[in-house]
Amino acid sequence: GDPSGGRGISMDFHKPDGCGHPLSDLKEWVAVQSDSVQPDLRKEVIRMMVLAADRLAALGATVNSVNLGSHQLPNGQDLPLPPVILGELGKDPQNPTVCFYGHVDVQPAKKEDGWKTDPYTLTEINGNLYGRGATDNKGPVLAWINAVETFRALKLVVNFKFVIEGMEEAGSLGLEKLLEEENQCFFSDVDYIVISDNVWLSNKKPALTYGSRGNACFLVEVECGGKDLHSGTFGGIIHEPLTDLIALLDSLVDPTGHIQIPGIYDSVAALTEEERKLYESIEFDLEEHKKNSGVKKFLYGTKEEILLHLWRYPSLSIHGIEGAFHEPGIKTVIPSKVIGKFSIRQVPHMDLSVVKRQVRHLEGVFSRRNSPNKLKVSMPLGAKPWLADVNDPLYKAARRAIKKVFGEDPDFIRDGSTVPVARMFQTITQKSVIMFPIGAADDGEHSQNEKISRHNYIEGTKVFAAFFLEISKLHRHLHETSNMEIKN
Amino acid sequence: GDPSGGRGISMDFHKPDGCGHPLSDLKEWVAVQSDSVQPDLRKEVIRMMVLAADRLAALGATVNSVNLGSHQLPNGQDLPLPPVILGELGKDPQNPTVCFYGHVDVQPAKKEDGWKTDPYTLTEINGNLYGRGATDNKGPVLAWINAVETFRALKLVVNFKFVIEGMEEAGSLGLEKLLEEENQCFFSDVDYIVISDNVWLSNKKPALTYGSRGNACFLVEVECGGKDLHSGTFGGIIHEPLTDLIALLDSLVDPTGHIQIPGIYDSVAALTEEERKLYESIEFDLEEHKKNSGVKKFLYGTKEEILLHLWRYPSLSIHGIEGAFHEPGIKTVIPSKVIGKFSIRQVPHMDLSVVKRQVRHLEGVFSRRNSPNKLKVSMPLGAKPWLADVNDPLYKAARRAIKKVFGEDPDFIRDGSTVPVARMFQTITQKSVIMFPIGAADDGEHSQNEKISRHNYIEGTKVFAAFFLEISKLHRHLHETSNMEIKN
Repeated sequence: GDPSGGRGISMDFHKPDGCGHPLSDLKEWVAVQSDSVQPDLRKEVIRMMVLAADRLAALGATVNSVNLGSHQLPNGQDLPLPPVILGELGKDPQNPTVCFYGHVDVQPAKKEDGWKTDPYTLTEINGNLYGRGATDNKGPVLAWINAVETFRALKLVVNFKFVIEGMEEAGSLGLEKLLEEENQCFFSDVDYIVISDNVWLSNKKPALTYGSRGNACFLVEVECGGKDLHSGTFGGIIHEPLTDLIALLDSLVDPTGHIQIPGIYDSVAALTEEERKLYESIEFDLEEHKKNSGVKKFLYGTKEEILLHLWRYPSLSIHGIEGAFHEPGIKTVIPSKVIGKFSIRQVPHMDLSVVKRQVRHLEGVFSRRNSPNKLKVSMPLGAKPWLADVNDPLYKAARRAIKKVFGEDPDFIRDGSTVPVARMFQTITQKSVIMFPIGAADDGEHSQNEKISRHNYIEGTKVFAAFFLEISKLHRHLHETSNMEIKN
Repeated sequence: GDPSGGRGISMDFHKPDGCGHPLSDLKEWVAVQSDSVQPDLRKEVIRMMVLAADRLAALGATVNSVNLGSHQLPNGQDLPLPPVILGELGKDPQNPTVCFYGHVDVQPAKKEDGWKTDPYTLTEINGNLYGRGATDNKGPVLAWINAVETFRALKLVVNFKFVIEGMEEAGSLGLEKLLEEENQCFFSDVDYIVISDNVWLSNKKPALTYGSRGNACFLVEVECGGKDLHSGTFGGIIHEPLTDLIALLDSLVDPTGHIQIPGIYDSVAALTEEERKLYESIEFDLEEHKKNSGVKKFLYGTKEEILLHLWRYPSLSIHGIEGAFHEPGIKTVIPSKVIGKFSIRQVPHMDLSVVKRQVRHLEGVFSRRNSPNKLKVSMPLGAKPWLADVNDPLYKAARRAIKKVFGEDPDFIRDGSTVPVARMFQTITQKSVIMFPIGAADDGEHSQNEKISRHNYIEGTKVFAAFFLEISKLHRHLHETSNMEIKN
């Protein structure tokens, strides 16, 4: 069954530069200023989509560039949305169908922001390939395409699909709607979805990401009346809205970081022994992370506790207050309407609507103050957590591929932040989703001097190709097993 | 010894318009855009100072326009300061010397801000004289000068001094230094200081002001490290500075408005029976005040409690937080350095340095949190309260004058805000200071449609003249009594 004849994957990365060479591909793509954030660069994003579509077509894929229309900027200007590319390569119903999601738009970048090299000229220094989009996400997209190209040269036992967008850095406008529309069509025969739009937890050790926290954002508004008042003329005789709000916010979390909202931990999944073991082996430099944050001391002392509290326990952060005095200096004002902002990073199996109801705990705190002011608590934004099953064939195959190419088992990691795209694909398509990064922790996505190392880029291509092999083996095995089960 | 021969004061305000007529004087002064806030109108302030100096010279006063040099604007521009006018009229050591402080600069005003009439054209509508500076402070300054002019036509038994400035609305730059320099010279023979730069508590009933609260402003800074952090990447594993700050601010004041800083009430002067009586008779429309504030309910239900808590008890107001997210919407940031701002309106006999020490109570609250963050509490601004003795001859004379002219006793009132100029004069010169308003509560200082009623302007002139008579009588009486005591 091994289509490579047990030889594993070998690719020649030393052929001279030319069309289809991985480094010249990346150089060409990085040179396109496909910044989706700045409106005047939108035409470059659209040009980038054409390049990406051509690259897939060159692979032999059927390519459909779906027009998503336009969107309106805050200033009223109408701006065209770049198309989303839906690509398809292979349609054998015997083979597993792996769908890859990636994006070819980038964050803004200017040399004068503090780049050592021109951000749009891919430059190799000490084995690192510097350039905007090198790791987020042009490099991984090309690594995948190159892996498919190589794999195709062997006997093709995997069907490939591609979803490539150009608005990820600007909120993936239109993507969710497209996924919903295509769920019964494009996605109907998809078995697995791979996203490679994040990085490892360490600089050296590969990782697979199987979950992310959600985010429930809350506004707490307290209002006393029509206008801001002078603290000389009204201080001491009124219930000040900001004093009320401070008390409400102070009721949310204790000095140890424990959330004080009754019942909030009730639905948090219990930590299994298997899960705890996953954490033990993870490569994570606590001191390095502390240094990066600038913080003197974390709430917990061990790597395991830190990661558990970052990934699989909820946290509550207060972000600020709108409507109060926020400038330097002193203004002796009693603000009449203040809005506190906080968010809860929630985790499986917390339910957003339950969390929303639990936060109404603030109404009780408020009513005990006997304040005549008006309280309004709302949740304008609620993103759910995402969690995949690490025992899914998708994760098994990726793990084996990593072991084969990198010689070690990956870390199984989560993301403390919210990864809307993974959650979106999983929720809409109900397929298995994996986040399969090839970039390292120090790649600097969104930062100056973004890079991917030449090693990661090339080994990443290999690991994707190895993954195709493993998933095809596992899939066939599963298929045969389930056929046997049916026969039995 | 009544120099008016027991006839009381009578003035003819019905002579035709002309030089020296009270209304044409005020019309001329209001027409000068002596706005000290806007740099490009500074020349108008300086022109106004010349007008005021000329007016005093026309009285027969010796006038010294003291040059205060210049000050620098935030943009680096050097702007000349208007001079302070020191005037002197009469030098008989047998007579009391009354020094009047007033200012002839004004707040900015534009027709399009919502004025019904041109702000720089004094316009009479239904008995009210509308115009910028009509009540704050050109009207009262002219009422005083006109009273002196009238009184001078009689037998002069009071020596007058004048301090007229042109930077009051811009922070009285240079005034304090001048007072200190002149303390042993110009102020050496001053017995009483009168300021008429505020308004009554009601629209109809005259008032004398004998105190104001101080203001101690505090900054509470909590910092965790170098940069703002992402709540997904660090939420749940660090001691968030804003959570610490919220807890610190929440420890300051309880829902009833009671300040929770230990010892803060220890030095507050006990309420005497005599004082409580003063409050009973005060004319104050609680419902009107509530309506003006927009607040549904005050912390206290009676007029007396409200005024006590506004004037003679301290209050604590939280104004806002610098460094946190303050814009509309949500930003899932953990701010690394946040600065809470609050102030305590303190009252006699609270001592600023004691208050500052007591606020270090926050350090204890912080240390109980076991937070590794850095706390810094500072008091960048501390203005002391001001309190005069209502049994001082100055107040007795003013009270008698009001009774004579208005036919009723004045309210003895304080100001919940800080009145730096009264405190400054009293602290530096150690003389008796009175705030002797002639404007009504609805005059709208600093607002659109500022006015003084024709009635208040003219009766104000009369009451000042009557006051000269009373203070001369009381002073002579005191002088004779003290001479007798020395002889005994």
